[in-house]
Amino acid sequence: MQLSKFSDYALRVLMHLAASPDRLLSTRQIAEMHDAKYNHLTKVTGWLVSEGYASSSRGRGGGLQLAKAPSEINLGKLIRTLEADRPLVECHSGDGGKCPLAASCGLSIVLQDAQEVFFQALEKYSIEDTVHVFPGMARFLTEMNDHAHH
Amino acid sequence: MQLSKFSDYALRVLMHLAASPDRLLSTRQIAEMHDAKYNHLTKVTGWLVSEGYASSSRGRGGGLQLAKAPSEINLGKLIRTLEADRPLVECHSGDGGKCPLAASCGLSIVLQDAQEVFFQALEKYSIEDTVHVFPGMARFLTEMNDHAHH
Repeated sequence: MQLSKFSDYALRVLMHLAASPDRLLSTRQIAEMHDAKYNHLTKVTGWLVSEGYASSSRGRGGGLQLAKAPSEINLGKLIRTLEADRPLVECHSGDGGKCPLAASCGLSIVLQDAQEVFFQALEKYSIEDTVHVFPGMARFLTEMNDHAHH
Repeated sequence: MQLSKFSDYALRVLMHLAASPDRLLSTRQIAEMHDAKYNHLTKVTGWLVSEGYASSSRGRGGGLQLAKAPSEINLGKLIRTLEADRPLVECHSGDGGKCPLAASCGLSIVLQDAQEVFFQALEKYSIEDTVHVFPGMARFLTEMNDHAHH
């Protein structure tokens, strides 16, 4: 069971931004910190801006910052949105897929319930929680951010 | 959040076998019913045999049948095994992956807990349940099996 690389990076970007509310971080800086492909991370940060999670300012010294308080970015809601086009199994897709069992499948409903429980477990947490649950995490992120190349 | 196509097919195969305990079904027959690539499904059924879920007999009229009672094939345990090499995020992999946040990440633990809840929800069910939860499901599977080309 996998989250997409896109989701993974979106979550990492939000954690970096949450740890340094007073800094602007560029997509390139975060890409370098995570050894990620810049072109891929551009799509991720573009998505975060378009969905209202982050805002960006252009030009020299420009960059990204959170557009919401970290405590207002609910993990369950975020990951549901990020994974919306990646159904657990084919028959959970919008068009129902092609599985001939779909119409009366007992597995489909059991999987759907389990996935719902997964999202509900994540709904108890926000990005703020992910940054502050370990004492060292916020400091570690801040230090990475502060040492990012310009 | 996606299960692999491999897992999806493994589950479908087990449902077909569970619905017709008195028949032998070939990999080719199931592949045709699900419009699946025969070569891919061979790997799936080979895995099910090697893991002790199914047994196969060769030759004309040979095929697959369950090696356990459907009620003894626990969904949570099965899907954990099927997805063992597909970590939810990179840092859950055996080698820990390359994410620089991994050592003290508050997200990693939250995701792990949510995934655990997902598997626990599935542990309440067996393959037997998936075939019998809808009144029409077992009959539907049996009819598909009976009409499979030889």
